[in-house]
Amino acid sequence: MRLRHKPWAKNLLAAHPEFVVMNPEDAKGNWEKRFKLAQPIHLEIGAGKGRFAIDMAKAHPNINFIALEVQPSVIVTALQQQFDLGLENLLLLVGNAINLPDYFDSAEIDRIYLNFSDPWPKKRHAKRRLTSPNFLPLYQKILSIKGDIHFKTDNQGLFEYSLSSMANYGMLLNNISLDLHQSGWPENIMTEYEEKFSAKGHRIYRLEAKFRTDV
Amino acid sequence: MRLRHKPWAKNLLAAHPEFVVMNPEDAKGNWEKRFKLAQPIHLEIGAGKGRFAIDMAKAHPNINFIALEVQPSVIVTALQQQFDLGLENLLLLVGNAINLPDYFDSAEIDRIYLNFSDPWPKKRHAKRRLTSPNFLPLYQKILSIKGDIHFKTDNQGLFEYSLSSMANYGMLLNNISLDLHQSGWPENIMTEYEEKFSAKGHRIYRLEAKFRTDV
Repeated sequence: MRLRHKPWAKNLLAAHPEFVVMNPEDAKGNWEKRFKLAQPIHLEIGAGKGRFAIDMAKAHPNINFIALEVQPSVIVTALQQQFDLGLENLLLLVGNAINLPDYFDSAEIDRIYLNFSDPWPKKRHAKRRLTSPNFLPLYQKILSIKGDIHFKTDNQGLFEYSLSSMANYGMLLNNISLDLHQSGWPENIMTEYEEKFSAKGHRIYRLEAKFRTDV
Repeated sequence: MRLRHKPWAKNLLAAHPEFVVMNPEDAKGNWEKRFKLAQPIHLEIGAGKGRFAIDMAKAHPNINFIALEVQPSVIVTALQQQFDLGLENLLLLVGNAINLPDYFDSAEIDRIYLNFSDPWPKKRHAKRRLTSPNFLPLYQKILSIKGDIHFKTDNQGLFEYSLSSMANYGMLLNNISLDLHQSGWPENIMTEYEEKFSAKGHRIYRLEAKFRTDV
C-alpha cells in the first residue's frame, strides 16, 4: 500500500492509551488485564488500517484482538474508527513483528492472523517474509499449545514459499484453499486489500498452520 | 480417463517380458538386473498410456524408468509404442500401488512420479487418493534416502489435500508451483492429460516432497 505520511499520527496514537499500546514491552505477560474481559487473545500482524481486526472484533465479542502495525500513519485510521466504535475487545499495537518475544510472554497468544503480508519477492529479501524461518520461531514462542496461524494472501509466490517454509519447519497445515472466494469458506472477513484484489479476479490463497506438540 | 476394454491386452502384455513385468513380486530386490544398465530407478505410479514415462525415458537415458499401471487395457498402448521404440531404460509394470512393498525392496526406487492421479473427490474415498496417509508409508519404504516424490495435478482439491497430507505426515515440500505452465519451470515433460487440460486454461499444480531423514 502506498503510504501517506501523517506527521501527527504518532502523537494522536500516544494520546489514547485506552485504544493503543505504544510500549508493548510494558504489557508483556499482562495483556489479559489490558482488556475488559479475560478471554482468548488473537493477534493480527501487519494490520494496516485495521479493517479486518475491527470487523473481527465486532463479529467475535468473545475474543480479544490485538492489531499490530509498524506504521503509525497507517494504523491511526483504526484509531480514528475506534473513537466512534469504542470496541473494548480491540487494542492497537505500534510495533515490529521481529520484536514479538519482547511484547508477549510464552503462550500468551491464541491465534495469529497474517493477512496479505508483504511478499518481499526478491530472493535476497526472503528473510523478511513473515512466513520465513526467521519469524516462525517467534510465533511458536508466543502461541499457546492449541494456538494456530491463519494466513491469507493473493500473492502466488508468497503462498508457494509459505507452504514450503511452514512444512519444512515441521508445522501441520490444514484447511488449505487455493481459491478462497470460490471455496465457499464460511465467514470470511475481508481485508481492504482482499476486497480490492479479489474484485479484480485475483485468487485468494489461505491456510491454517499449527506447531507440532507431539515431538 | 474413459476406459476402452481391450480383452486382448493382457495376453499381449504377457507375451512381451522384454518390455513388461507381469509378476513384479518376482523382480523384488532385483530390478536393477532387469535393465540393461545399472542406474537410478524412477517409478511412475498410474502411468496410463505411458506417454510421460516414454518421453522421460527418451530424454533421460541415464535413468531407468518403471511405468506402473493397474489397467492392462491402458498400459498396452505404451507396449505398442515400445515395439517401435525399444527403449531399454523403460519397463512397464501391471500392478496396484497398494502392493508396492511386494514389488520393491526398501530403498530400491530413487524417485516416484505421481501425475494427475485420480482425485477421488468424495471424502469417504480419501483413503484411495495416492497422496493419502494410506500410501505415503509405502513410498517411504521403497524410496532411497535421497529419493523424492514429484507430484503434479490439475485438480485443485487433490492438491490442497495433498499439501496437508504430506506436511502433516512430516514430509519436506519444495519447488511448489501453483501454476506450473506460467512458472517457467524448465523441462516439463507433459502427460497426455496435462496437455489437454492446460490447453483448456486449467492451472497445473506441482510439488516435490521428501521424507525426513533427520528424525
